[in-house]
Amino acid sequence: MEHRTEISSLGEFGLIEHLTKNIELQNSSTIVGVGDDAAVIDHFGKQTVITTDLLIEGVHFDLAYTPLKHLGYKSVIVNISDVYAMNATPTHITLSIAISNRFSLEALDEFYEGVYAACAKYEVDLIGGDTSSSQKGFIVSVTAIGEVAPGKFVKRNGAKKGDLVCCSGDLGAAYLGLIFLEREKKIFLENPKIKPDLEGEKYVIGRLLKPEARKDILDLLSDAEVLPTSMMDISDGLSSEILHLCKQSQLGCVLFEEKIPVAEETRLAAFKFELDPTACALSGGEDYELLFTISQKDYEQIRHSEQISVIGYMEDPEKGKKIITKGGNTFDITAQGWNAFR
Amino acid sequence: MEHRTEISSLGEFGLIEHLTKNIELQNSSTIVGVGDDAAVIDHFGKQTVITTDLLIEGVHFDLAYTPLKHLGYKSVIVNISDVYAMNATPTHITLSIAISNRFSLEALDEFYEGVYAACAKYEVDLIGGDTSSSQKGFIVSVTAIGEVAPGKFVKRNGAKKGDLVCCSGDLGAAYLGLIFLEREKKIFLENPKIKPDLEGEKYVIGRLLKPEARKDILDLLSDAEVLPTSMMDISDGLSSEILHLCKQSQLGCVLFEEKIPVAEETRLAAFKFELDPTACALSGGEDYELLFTISQKDYEQIRHSEQISVIGYMEDPEKGKKIITKGGNTFDITAQGWNAFR
Repeated sequence: MEHRTEISSLGEFGLIEHLTKNIELQNSSTIVGVGDDAAVIDHFGKQTVITTDLLIEGVHFDLAYTPLKHLGYKSVIVNISDVYAMNATPTHITLSIAISNRFSLEALDEFYEGVYAACAKYEVDLIGGDTSSSQKGFIVSVTAIGEVAPGKFVKRNGAKKGDLVCCSGDLGAAYLGLIFLEREKKIFLENPKIKPDLEGEKYVIGRLLKPEARKDILDLLSDAEVLPTSMMDISDGLSSEILHLCKQSQLGCVLFEEKIPVAEETRLAAFKFELDPTACALSGGEDYELLFTISQKDYEQIRHSEQISVIGYMEDPEKGKKIITKGGNTFDITAQGWNAFR
Repeated sequence: MEHRTEISSLGEFGLIEHLTKNIELQNSSTIVGVGDDAAVIDHFGKQTVITTDLLIEGVHFDLAYTPLKHLGYKSVIVNISDVYAMNATPTHITLSIAISNRFSLEALDEFYEGVYAACAKYEVDLIGGDTSSSQKGFIVSVTAIGEVAPGKFVKRNGAKKGDLVCCSGDLGAAYLGLIFLEREKKIFLENPKIKPDLEGEKYVIGRLLKPEARKDILDLLSDAEVLPTSMMDISDGLSSEILHLCKQSQLGCVLFEEKIPVAEETRLAAFKFELDPTACALSGGEDYELLFTISQKDYEQIRHSEQISVIGYMEDPEKGKKIITKGGNTFDITAQGWNAFR
């Protein structure tokens, strides 16, 4: 090879775009391919949704403070969250793992306890996988399969001008959980005798280590007969995700800082670390909440839900992607999401 | 954890059995779960087949002698081979990769060239995936999805006493390709000036680096209106695979050494390394041929095919799993297949 281009110069999304730009789909059953939370395949009456994630020790998780049971649980959650983000119901997963010989069978059993707990809670069947050794660390690959009635899947590109931007639950907590555990790890490594006091940070740590997928939001929307015009899950931080929605829907947006939901526990944790809670919500990842847009006519149906916040609206593309701060200033939204290649 | 059980004490299949023994399937659409080449899900008229594999640098492949394009190609083949082994047609794959920063974009492009070549050849759509960094080495995870008419999938447990054991193509070549390339690598590391002469070993090396999936065998069987009673692909060596068929079909078997297909090139390569060609066929892996059983009444339909060898027959379980050598001796078949944990 004569020329060398560093992967880091493209970033994760640039890389995916580069690698998949020449795909020519051959099967008429392929309805949605690369580029959304999940792919969609037609299967005679129902449509199948498929998504996959790779979790690597030292990159995506740190076993110094991640109990294996939680890791197993989370490995399932991050995948089925992508299925829900298509407005589909997860039904099956495959799970592949690679482990070095530093792991005992008892350790693996703990991991699988978490996997099965998530499968039971979300009524998903584990139907296959692959087990292998690794040279270094723990590697987890999960593929989730779900189903959705024809035409009911929700992509990232369906938002219309004037649609309301909504988000479930609250944001920024998982990132502060990470900051907290990273600090405790550092303290522990410097002085193993100091015992960390995690009591006050239960909420943010729990959000990082044991996230949930927002099935309840889909149920709520379905009961209210509201079909979002676009949807995705928030795994890389709100700013990164809203930019995806804008790009794929070819629109701009306006968000209001004061409307972005941040839990009181998150706010307090942010202040301890002298961080801006809004910045944590915008740029922190791993909240696994749902970001979606709805038509204005549907506002009445969702406005009483405590689990859904309307945080802005979609705009003409030439208006840009803006956030209006509590102080009334307007800024461009920039992606500060987590870049796996930096 | 008080007690530590080494993973290696169970072996790969023991480990999978241990980890999945308590699965309780919750979805009525789950027709086949863990334990076959692929899982089967019902989807209103057609059935969906799903399988997944994890390939890890240093464990499953060595980039010292594996061109990235071939690796991309093979990553697809090993998965769709599992779909064919269910008598199904692969239609879609997802592909996740993790790479360290030692890989350039140009290197990745090469890998994807191979992926797309395999997709084009086998008419499979790449529909999704995940791209991430790794701390060490190249990690590839592929999930393949296929379809099959209801009831037409072929599991490992359907063989009946008296059924003929058949195998496609020829065996042992990929293992000798591996032995050869490992030797050349060692020579090169000791003296980088010696240029290896691979010309004579083209066949066995090709079988290792660029395997194909036996779609043609399924077409042939379908044209001949023969539905195998059991089937799997040969990824871990014939002896390991026939023991799986026997175990799952609760039968014994008799194989004839002289009937096991070994290519002339494989035989010559084996002699160079003072190896027994039959041992290479029995214990070498990665041939990705199909091993299947058919009812005796179907023999006439397949006997003229040069690509199918009848190598034995299924027996009562108490007769054991036997191989009759060319010299007329009878031995027990023992699994010498590749154990990823040793």
